[in-house]
Amino acid sequence: MTNEPSPAAPPEPVEHLESRQCWDLLRQVSVGRLAVWVDDHPDIFPLNYTVDHGTLVFRTDEGTKLGGALGDTPVALEADGVDAATGMAWSVVVKGKAAAITGIEGILDTASLYLFPWQGGKKDHFVRITPDSVTGRRFKVTPPLTWWTQLSGAVRSSPE
Amino acid sequence: MTNEPSPAAPPEPVEHLESRQCWDLLRQVSVGRLAVWVDDHPDIFPLNYTVDHGTLVFRTDEGTKLGGALGDTPVALEADGVDAATGMAWSVVVKGKAAAITGIEGILDTASLYLFPWQGGKKDHFVRITPDSVTGRRFKVTPPLTWWTQLSGAVRSSPE
Repeated sequence: MTNEPSPAAPPEPVEHLESRQCWDLLRQVSVGRLAVWVDDHPDIFPLNYTVDHGTLVFRTDEGTKLGGALGDTPVALEADGVDAATGMAWSVVVKGKAAAITGIEGILDTASLYLFPWQGGKKDHFVRITPDSVTGRRFKVTPPLTWWTQLSGAVRSSPE
Repeated sequence: MTNEPSPAAPPEPVEHLESRQCWDLLRQVSVGRLAVWVDDHPDIFPLNYTVDHGTLVFRTDEGTKLGGALGDTPVALEADGVDAATGMAWSVVVKGKAAAITGIEGILDTASLYLFPWQGGKKDHFVRITPDSVTGRRFKVTPPLTWWTQLSGAVRSSPE
Protein backbone atom coordinates (compact mmCIF):
# COMPACT_ATOMS: atom_id res chain seq x y z
CA MET A 1 0.00 0.00 0.00
CA THR A 2 3.00 2.32 -0.40
CA ASN A 3 4.09 4.25 -3.45
CA GLU A 4 7.75 3.43 -3.06
CA PRO A 5 9.47 2.16 -6.18
CA SER A 6 10.18 -1.54 -6.20
CA PRO A 7 13.14 -2.02 -8.52
CA ALA A 8 13.63 -5.61 -7.43
CA ALA A 9 10.14 -6.58 -8.65
CA PRO A 10 9.12 -8.38 -5.50
CA PRO A 11 6.62 -11.19 -5.74
CA GLU A 12 3.07 -10.03 -6.27
CA PRO A 13 1.21 -10.28 -3.01
CA VAL A 14 -1.65 -12.67 -2.65
CA GLU A 15 -4.83 -10.97 -1.61
CA HIS A 16 -6.99 -13.00 0.72
CA LEU A 17 -10.63 -12.36 -0.03
CA GLU A 18 -13.46 -11.62 2.34
CA SER A 19 -16.38 -14.00 2.51
CA ARG A 20 -18.62 -11.55 0.63
CA GLN A 21 -16.07 -11.27 -2.18
CA CYS A 22 -15.83 -15.04 -2.38
CA TRP A 23 -19.58 -15.42 -2.82
CA ASP A 24 -19.66 -12.66 -5.43
CA LEU A 25 -17.03 -14.52 -7.41
CA LEU A 26 -18.71 -17.89 -6.96
CA ARG A 27 -21.79 -16.38 -8.58
CA GLN A 28 -19.80 -15.15 -11.59
CA VAL A 29 -18.98 -18.60 -12.93
CA SER A 30 -20.86 -21.84 -13.06
CA VAL A 31 -18.15 -24.41 -13.64
CA GLY A 32 -16.19 -25.64 -10.66
CA ARG A 33 -14.07 -28.63 -9.79
CA LEU A 34 -15.10 -30.88 -6.97
CA ALA A 35 -12.49 -32.79 -5.01
CA VAL A 36 -13.64 -35.90 -3.22
CA TRP A 37 -11.93 -38.81 -1.58
CA VAL A 38 -12.62 -42.08 -3.41
CA ASP A 39 -11.26 -45.33 -1.98
CA ASP A 40 -7.64 -44.48 -1.24
CA HIS A 41 -7.03 -41.36 -3.28
CA PRO A 42 -8.48 -37.98 -4.16
CA ASP A 43 -10.43 -37.53 -7.35
CA ILE A 44 -11.64 -34.42 -9.17
CA PHE A 45 -14.73 -33.81 -11.25
CA PRO A 46 -15.60 -30.70 -13.22
CA LEU A 47 -19.24 -29.78 -12.76
CA ASN A 48 -21.78 -27.02 -12.97
CA TYR A 49 -22.87 -25.57 -9.69
CA THR A 50 -25.07 -22.74 -8.62
CA VAL A 51 -25.21 -20.65 -5.48
CA ASP A 52 -28.31 -21.10 -3.38
CA HIS A 53 -28.68 -19.22 -0.12
CA GLY A 54 -25.16 -19.66 1.11
CA THR A 55 -24.81 -23.18 -0.23
CA LEU A 56 -23.72 -24.69 -3.53
CA VAL A 57 -25.95 -27.05 -5.47
CA PHE A 58 -25.07 -29.35 -8.32
CA ARG A 59 -26.56 -32.31 -10.11
CA THR A 60 -25.09 -35.73 -10.58
CA ASP A 61 -26.01 -39.21 -11.59
CA GLU A 62 -26.01 -41.61 -8.66
CA GLY A 63 -24.48 -44.26 -10.84
CA THR A 64 -21.26 -42.38 -11.37
CA LYS A 65 -18.18 -42.64 -9.27
CA LEU A 66 -18.88 -39.11 -8.12
CA GLY A 67 -22.33 -40.05 -6.90
CA GLY A 68 -20.92 -42.94 -4.95
CA ALA A 69 -18.23 -40.83 -3.36
CA LEU A 70 -20.59 -38.39 -1.73
CA GLY A 71 -21.23 -39.28 1.85
CA ASP A 72 -20.01 -38.23 5.23
CA THR A 73 -16.53 -37.35 4.10
CA PRO A 74 -15.95 -33.68 3.41
CA VAL A 75 -15.53 -32.32 -0.09
CA ALA A 76 -13.97 -29.21 -1.58
CA LEU A 77 -15.29 -27.29 -4.54
CA GLU A 78 -13.00 -24.82 -6.25
CA ALA A 79 -13.90 -22.17 -8.79
CA ASP A 80 -11.49 -19.77 -10.42
CA GLY A 81 -11.16 -17.22 -13.13
CA VAL A 82 -8.79 -14.79 -14.74
CA ASP A 83 -9.41 -11.19 -15.73
CA ALA A 84 -7.59 -11.12 -19.05
CA ALA A 85 -7.31 -7.32 -18.98
CA THR A 86 -5.59 -7.08 -15.61
CA GLY A 87 -3.97 -10.50 -15.41
CA MET A 88 -5.51 -10.95 -12.00
CA ALA A 89 -6.73 -14.41 -11.19
CA TRP A 90 -8.91 -15.55 -8.35
CA SER A 91 -9.56 -18.89 -6.76
CA VAL A 92 -12.28 -19.63 -4.24
CA VAL A 93 -12.54 -22.92 -2.36
CA VAL A 94 -15.65 -24.05 -0.52
CA LYS A 95 -15.15 -26.88 1.94
CA GLY A 96 -17.97 -28.76 3.55
CA LYS A 97 -20.23 -31.78 3.46
CA ALA A 98 -22.20 -32.76 0.39
CA ALA A 99 -25.65 -34.19 0.92
CA ALA A 100 -28.37 -35.29 -1.46
CA ILE A 101 -31.36 -33.01 -1.63
CA THR A 102 -34.43 -35.09 -0.94
CA GLY A 103 -38.13 -34.56 -0.47
CA ILE A 104 -40.66 -32.85 -2.67
CA GLU A 105 -40.02 -29.39 -1.30
CA GLY A 106 -36.28 -29.66 -1.61
CA ILE A 107 -36.43 -30.85 -5.20
CA LEU A 108 -38.90 -28.18 -6.24
CA ASP A 109 -36.87 -25.45 -4.60
CA THR A 110 -33.77 -26.68 -6.34
CA ALA A 111 -35.38 -27.13 -9.73
CA SER A 112 -36.11 -23.41 -9.70
CA LEU A 113 -32.40 -22.78 -9.78
CA TYR A 114 -32.25 -23.65 -13.46
CA LEU A 115 -29.28 -25.79 -12.74
CA PHE A 116 -27.98 -27.66 -15.72
CA PRO A 117 -25.18 -30.16 -15.51
CA TRP A 118 -21.95 -29.45 -17.33
CA GLN A 119 -22.06 -32.91 -18.77
CA GLY A 120 -25.32 -33.70 -20.50
CA GLY A 121 -27.24 -36.82 -19.76
CA LYS A 122 -29.27 -38.23 -16.93
CA LYS A 123 -28.53 -36.33 -13.75
CA ASP A 124 -31.25 -37.26 -11.38
CA HIS A 125 -29.66 -36.34 -8.13
CA PHE A 126 -29.35 -32.90 -6.65
CA VAL A 127 -26.56 -32.44 -4.18
CA ARG A 128 -26.04 -29.56 -1.81
CA ILE A 129 -22.71 -28.54 -0.31
CA THR A 130 -23.13 -26.78 3.00
CA PRO A 131 -19.91 -24.87 3.62
CA ASP A 132 -17.77 -25.27 6.68
CA SER A 133 -15.40 -22.71 5.22
CA VAL A 134 -15.17 -20.43 2.22
CA THR A 135 -11.76 -19.03 1.36
CA GLY A 136 -10.49 -17.10 -1.59
CA ARG A 137 -7.34 -15.61 -3.01
CA ARG A 138 -6.64 -13.12 -5.75
CA PHE A 139 -3.23 -12.95 -7.36
CA LYS A 140 -1.48 -11.92 -10.51
CA VAL A 141 -0.96 -14.55 -13.17
CA THR A 142 2.57 -14.64 -14.47
CA PRO A 143 2.39 -13.46 -18.09
CA PRO A 144 2.90 -14.40 -20.77
CA LEU A 145 5.01 -17.54 -20.57
CA THR A 146 2.53 -19.07 -18.19
CA TRP A 147 0.61 -20.42 -21.11
CA TRP A 148 3.53 -21.49 -23.23
CA THR A 149 4.05 -25.02 -22.16
CA GLN A 150 4.30 -25.99 -25.80
CA LEU A 151 7.61 -24.23 -25.70
CA SER A 152 9.13 -27.03 -23.70
CA GLY A 153 9.59 -29.27 -26.67
CA ALA A 154 11.02 -26.49 -28.79
CA VAL A 155 13.59 -25.67 -26.16
CA ARG A 156 14.63 -29.25 -25.87
CA SER A 157 14.98 -29.89 -29.55
CA SER A 158 17.02 -26.77 -30.24
CA PRO A 159 20.72 -27.26 -31.03
CA GLU A 160 23.05 -26.80 -28.06
CA MET B 1 -22.68 -45.41 -34.22
CA THR B 2 -26.01 -45.78 -36.05
CA ASN B 3 -27.75 -43.30 -38.28
CA GLU B 4 -31.18 -43.92 -36.82
CA PRO B 5 -33.08 -40.83 -35.79
CA SER B 6 -33.21 -40.20 -32.08
CA PRO B 7 -36.38 -38.22 -31.45
CA ALA B 8 -36.13 -38.74 -27.70
CA ALA B 9 -32.74 -37.02 -27.59
CA PRO B 10 -31.03 -39.64 -25.47
CA PRO B 11 -28.20 -38.60 -23.21
CA GLU B 12 -24.97 -37.93 -25.03
CA PRO B 13 -22.61 -40.80 -24.42
CA VAL B 14 -19.43 -40.26 -22.50
CA GLU B 15 -16.36 -41.24 -24.43
CA HIS B 16 -13.60 -42.76 -22.35
CA LEU B 17 -10.25 -41.72 -23.70
CA GLU B 18 -7.20 -43.81 -24.40
CA SER B 19 -4.01 -43.07 -22.54
CA ARG B 20 -2.44 -41.50 -25.62
CA GLN B 21 -5.41 -39.18 -26.07
CA CYS B 22 -5.19 -38.17 -22.42
CA TRP B 23 -1.55 -37.19 -22.74
CA ASP B 24 -2.22 -35.28 -25.94
CA LEU B 25 -4.90 -33.29 -24.13
CA LEU B 26 -2.74 -32.76 -21.05
CA ARG B 27 -0.17 -31.12 -23.32
CA GLN B 28 -2.76 -28.74 -24.79
CA VAL B 29 -3.35 -26.79 -21.61
CA SER B 30 -1.09 -25.69 -18.80
CA VAL B 31 -3.51 -24.92 -16.00
CA GLY B 32 -4.79 -27.77 -13.90
CA ARG B 33 -6.35 -28.24 -10.51
CA LEU B 34 -4.59 -30.31 -7.93
CA ALA B 35 -6.58 -32.12 -5.27
CA VAL B 36 -4.76 -33.01 -2.08
CA TRP B 37 -5.81 -34.18 1.34
CA VAL B 38 -5.01 -31.60 4.02
CA ASP B 39 -5.69 -32.44 7.66
CA ASP B 40 -9.22 -33.81 7.56
CA HIS B 41 -10.55 -32.61 4.21
CA PRO B 42 -9.70 -32.32 0.55
CA ASP B 43 -8.37 -29.08 -0.84
CA ILE B 44 -7.87 -27.85 -4.39
CA PHE B 45 -5.26 -25.58 -5.89
CA PRO B 46 -5.11 -24.25 -9.43
CA LEU B 47 -1.60 -24.42 -10.81
CA ASN B 48 0.49 -24.52 -13.93
CA TYR B 49 1.89 -27.87 -14.85
CA THR B 50 3.85 -29.24 -17.71
CA VAL B 51 4.21 -32.72 -19.12
CA ASP B 52 7.65 -34.24 -18.77
CA HIS B 53 8.30 -37.75 -20.02
CA GLY B 54 5.11 -39.32 -18.76
CA THR B 55 5.01 -37.29 -15.56
CA LEU B 56 3.60 -33.92 -14.60
CA VAL B 57 5.77 -31.22 -13.06
CA PHE B 58 4.75 -28.06 -11.27
CA ARG B 59 6.31 -25.48 -9.01
CA THR B 60 5.24 -24.44 -5.57
CA ASP B 61 6.43 -22.59 -2.54
CA GLU B 62 7.23 -24.90 0.34
CA GLY B 63 5.71 -22.40 2.72
CA THR B 64 2.23 -22.73 1.32
CA LYS B 65 -0.42 -25.09 2.48
CA LEU B 66 -0.01 -26.89 -0.80
CA GLY B 67 3.68 -27.43 -0.21
CA GLY B 68 2.99 -28.85 3.20
CA ALA B 69 0.33 -31.19 1.91
CA LEU B 70 2.59 -33.01 -0.50
CA GLY B 71 3.92 -36.18 0.97
CA ASP B 72 3.12 -39.84 0.84
CA THR B 73 -0.59 -39.40 0.33
CA PRO B 74 -1.73 -39.63 -3.27
CA VAL B 75 -2.88 -36.60 -5.22
CA ALA B 76 -5.05 -36.04 -8.26
CA LEU B 77 -4.48 -33.44 -10.93
CA GLU B 78 -7.31 -32.63 -13.29
CA ALA B 79 -7.18 -30.65 -16.52
CA ASP B 80 -10.11 -29.92 -18.77
CA GLY B 81 -11.19 -27.91 -21.72
CA VAL B 82 -14.09 -27.20 -24.02
CA ASP B 83 -14.11 -26.96 -27.79
CA ALA B 84 -16.44 -23.99 -28.24
CA ALA B 85 -17.19 -24.95 -31.83
CA THR B 86 -18.38 -28.47 -31.11
CA GLY B 87 -19.48 -28.13 -27.51
CA MET B 88 -17.36 -31.13 -26.65
CA ALA B 89 -15.58 -30.99 -23.34
CA TRP B 90 -12.85 -33.19 -22.02
CA SER B 91 -11.51 -33.90 -18.58
CA VAL B 92 -8.37 -35.82 -17.78
CA VAL B 93 -7.38 -36.88 -14.27
CA VAL B 94 -3.90 -38.00 -13.32
CA LYS B 95 -3.62 -39.81 -10.01
CA GLY B 96 -0.36 -40.57 -8.32
CA LYS B 97 2.22 -39.55 -5.80
CA ALA B 98 3.77 -36.09 -5.76
CA ALA B 99 7.42 -35.84 -4.83
CA ALA B 100 9.84 -32.95 -4.67
CA ILE B 101 12.46 -32.90 -7.39
CA THR B 102 15.84 -32.71 -5.76
CA GLY B 103 19.45 -32.77 -6.77
CA ILE B 104 21.34 -30.68 -9.28
CA GLU B 105 20.51 -32.86 -12.24
CA GLY B 106 16.83 -33.00 -11.44
CA ILE B 107 16.54 -29.25 -11.03
CA LEU B 108 18.45 -28.49 -14.22
CA ASP B 109 16.39 -30.96 -16.21
CA THR B 110 13.25 -29.43 -14.86
CA ALA B 111 14.31 -25.83 -15.38
CA SER B 112 14.55 -26.59 -19.07
CA LEU B 113 10.83 -27.16 -19.10
CA TYR B 114 10.21 -23.42 -18.97
CA LEU B 115 7.71 -24.02 -16.27
CA PHE B 116 6.18 -20.90 -14.85
CA PRO B 117 3.81 -20.91 -11.94
CA TRP B 118 0.27 -19.72 -12.49
CA GLN B 119 0.57 -17.56 -9.42
CA GLY B 120 3.59 -15.29 -9.54
CA GLY B 121 6.02 -15.07 -6.68
CA LYS B 122 8.64 -17.22 -5.12
CA LYS B 123 8.17 -20.82 -6.18
CA ASP B 124 11.35 -22.56 -5.25
CA HIS B 125 10.19 -26.11 -5.23
CA PHE B 126 9.67 -28.33 -8.20
CA VAL B 127 7.28 -31.19 -7.69
CA ARG B 128 6.78 -34.19 -9.92
CA ILE B 129 3.63 -36.28 -10.07
CA THR B 130 4.34 -39.82 -11.17
CA PRO B 131 1.05 -41.26 -12.39
CA ASP B 132 -0.51 -44.41 -11.04
CA SER B 133 -3.39 -43.87 -13.42
CA VAL B 134 -4.40 -41.50 -16.20
CA THR B 135 -8.04 -41.43 -17.17
CA GLY B 136 -10.01 -39.17 -19.43
CA ARG B 137 -13.52 -38.54 -20.64
CA ARG B 138 -14.97 -36.55 -23.49
CA PHE B 139 -18.60 -35.47 -23.43
CA LYS B 140 -20.94 -32.84 -24.76
CA VAL B 141 -21.53 -29.76 -22.67
CA THR B 142 -25.17 -28.92 -22.26
CA PRO B 143 -25.72 -25.64 -24.10
CA PRO B 144 -26.52 -22.90 -23.64
CA LEU B 145 -28.17 -22.68 -20.24
CA THR B 146 -25.18 -24.32 -18.68
CA TRP B 147 -23.62 -20.95 -18.26
CA TRP B 148 -26.69 -19.05 -17.17
CA THR B 149 -26.56 -19.34 -13.46
CA GLN B 150 -27.35 -15.65 -13.21
CA LEU B 151 -30.81 -16.62 -14.35
CA SER B 152 -31.58 -18.14 -11.00
CA GLY B 153 -32.27 -14.84 -9.35
CA ALA B 154 -34.40 -13.62 -12.23
CA VAL B 155 -36.55 -16.71 -12.05
CA ARG B 156 -37.07 -16.34 -8.36
CA SER B 157 -37.91 -12.69 -8.40
CA SER B 158 -40.50 -13.00 -11.16
CA PRO B 159 -44.15 -12.52 -10.18
CA GLU B 160 -46.05 -15.74 -9.52
